[in-house]
Amino acid sequence: MKLNPNFERLKENYLFSEIAKKTEDYARAHPEARIIKMGIGDVTRPLVPAVIAAMSEAVAEMGEKETFKGYAPSDGYPFLKESVKSYYASLGAAIETDEIFISDGAKSDLGNLLDLFSTDNTALVPDPVYPVYVDTNALDGRRIILAKGAKENGFLPMPDRAVRADIIYICSPNNPTGAAYDRAGLAEWVSYANDTGAVIIYDAAYERFAEGDVPRSIFVIEEAKYCAIECCSFSKTAGFTGVRCGYCVIPFALERGGVRLNKAWRRLRAAKFNGVAYPIQRGAAAAYSAEGLAQIDENIRYYKRNASLLSRCLDEAGVWHTGGKHSPYIWLKCPCFFDSRKFFDCLLDSVRVVGTPGAGFGENGEGYFRLTAFSSFEDAQEGIYRLKEFLKGKV
Amino acid sequence: MKLNPNFERLKENYLFSEIAKKTEDYARAHPEARIIKMGIGDVTRPLVPAVIAAMSEAVAEMGEKETFKGYAPSDGYPFLKESVKSYYASLGAAIETDEIFISDGAKSDLGNLLDLFSTDNTALVPDPVYPVYVDTNALDGRRIILAKGAKENGFLPMPDRAVRADIIYICSPNNPTGAAYDRAGLAEWVSYANDTGAVIIYDAAYERFAEGDVPRSIFVIEEAKYCAIECCSFSKTAGFTGVRCGYCVIPFALERGGVRLNKAWRRLRAAKFNGVAYPIQRGAAAAYSAEGLAQIDENIRYYKRNASLLSRCLDEAGVWHTGGKHSPYIWLKCPCFFDSRKFFDCLLDSVRVVGTPGAGFGENGEGYFRLTAFSSFEDAQEGIYRLKEFLKGKV
Repeated sequence: MKLNPNFERLKENYLFSEIAKKTEDYARAHPEARIIKMGIGDVTRPLVPAVIAAMSEAVAEMGEKETFKGYAPSDGYPFLKESVKSYYASLGAAIETDEIFISDGAKSDLGNLLDLFSTDNTALVPDPVYPVYVDTNALDGRRIILAKGAKENGFLPMPDRAVRADIIYICSPNNPTGAAYDRAGLAEWVSYANDTGAVIIYDAAYERFAEGDVPRSIFVIEEAKYCAIECCSFSKTAGFTGVRCGYCVIPFALERGGVRLNKAWRRLRAAKFNGVAYPIQRGAAAAYSAEGLAQIDENIRYYKRNASLLSRCLDEAGVWHTGGKHSPYIWLKCPCFFDSRKFFDCLLDSVRVVGTPGAGFGENGEGYFRLTAFSSFEDAQEGIYRLKEFLKGKV
Repeated sequence: MKLNPNFERLKENYLFSEIAKKTEDYARAHPEARIIKMGIGDVTRPLVPAVIAAMSEAVAEMGEKETFKGYAPSDGYPFLKESVKSYYASLGAAIETDEIFISDGAKSDLGNLLDLFSTDNTALVPDPVYPVYVDTNALDGRRIILAKGAKENGFLPMPDRAVRADIIYICSPNNPTGAAYDRAGLAEWVSYANDTGAVIIYDAAYERFAEGDVPRSIFVIEEAKYCAIECCSFSKTAGFTGVRCGYCVIPFALERGGVRLNKAWRRLRAAKFNGVAYPIQRGAAAAYSAEGLAQIDENIRYYKRNASLLSRCLDEAGVWHTGGKHSPYIWLKCPCFFDSRKFFDCLLDSVRVVGTPGAGFGENGEGYFRLTAFSSFEDAQEGIYRLKEFLKGKV
């Protein structure tokens, strides 16, 4: 019996598990310390009332013979797919219900979707980025090349026509940098993919944080339906990190080698997945009701206020950063030539604030640091106060 | 961009999707017909009160700031892992909490676990069997060999020392045949795997239906910890087909090539999975409370009464079959030399009873047919009545 030989390509610890462990160790050694956590991108606001009401009702239905539900359709209940479709229509993107596949979250989809592709393909991954794109391709043995994000391009790399790739990842608004493509930027990627036959995997997990003209879906660009798969999640919108629901959109028009990827994915899912719990799908659908949307908007505003205060604090201290406007993330240049892990340790030791070292998101993340705005307002204020003291050299 | 070339190895339609479609088509063409569904193995009894109470309470917790939960541990909450551990202790199997990984169901685990293994490995799959073992290995490009189930071995193939395989599947009580290994049979497989270095993937989804001395876990055999991974699910025990929760057990002692599979799986899961919803894990844990166990036992008895009546009806008609004792499934020899798809059509056309053609479970399933006992008592009785009429040649 041989183990997957590509296992060796993975870093020993998953980034966020490593940060969680370091933080735990610190807390154990300093039981008196109040640590402000701005590391992992986990929400803190409870589920909104509209979602709770729908989930509670659905749980009750599962306890009655007349309303009990067994296996769900593996691509999701029509009522939820209709809600997603209407939401996309409101964004200016026309998609059909059967182009939508409900899942237990974008992280699962991002890994599982790779079943569609040959392991001979080359993946083009922006760097720095959410580590899952690299890990999952590494595990399958695919060649991985990087699209370099840097201060100079605002961490928004553009296509290089001299480079050929088969699978292209775009995450916008970006995790970890908070940078977001405008319509022209996305259109250039779409045009590049259509010209070269590549498939874009578009991660829209943070779409709800985008403002103004920043696209919330790649499908606002008409031609994207020939080259893109979009993954999205209720985690960062409706606070579903502990509930697990997401979806991907695979347009009927997306074909490669005479095969419709939508049809292929439907077949693959039937072999490996049995759908999402009925109460969770009811909760997700309620997140799109007028009431649900309004309640969720309030949470998004809450987090964005944190982000904006954090951004202002860095501006005042003269620290270069991106994000915070279309995103719950702030991506800052580590002051004083710190490397990012050293900055992590130093920030934790001196002011007990936890963030995430940029190097954990890829080689081009070295020298940068991610802070999240998902904490409570009180914690964010306290974190900002401590950060200010630190940046002034007072601690 | 190249698609996964192994996609061509899959049958165009997943077995159960195909049966569902045929049944729908028939219902549309005969809107007046009352169809008795004994095809897909989906439960019909609602969730038990203990589970509903726990899930409702947990949903309410998610709506309050003080009790809201974000990301769950990707291997499951300690409270649920403790419950699983205690359950295994009651079966006579000693496992540790960190040998347990909570997931969204056995089907997902069975597919995802293959990430651990090289695509160069050979999988030994009993035939007939749950189609997912073949599909998921085919998709990865692994060589697949079959362990032949037949009337002669009671559909319980034993290891052949002349055959070498790397990954061995065992499903006991078996889907679709309902046949179950006794301790000696399982011990022989364990000994074969330990001698050859193979890893057994043991599917225990139907363990709760086993009676008497039939093992409910492969880990009642001490040496299994050196060679086996066990997958199990709350679907057929606690009626969670529409709730999605399961787990796998990977013993610390299971090592290959100097790597602990438990540790490797923990790392892999962190890259592709973000855990199971808190309310669902609370519901699953409640299924192990004294109250929950008693309520679930009642449901199992309910289904087993259907199975036993079905079995008796076939005995009386002189139809050879396995299952129905340790299993909700009855696996019968198609009467009158029917092939299994022809029998499906004929049974649907003449008495409007839906079952599953044995050929859908593998080449050795040809000539056989699966009926499930998961319907209501009333439907089971009606189905049995119709089957009797059919077998007497009265329709």
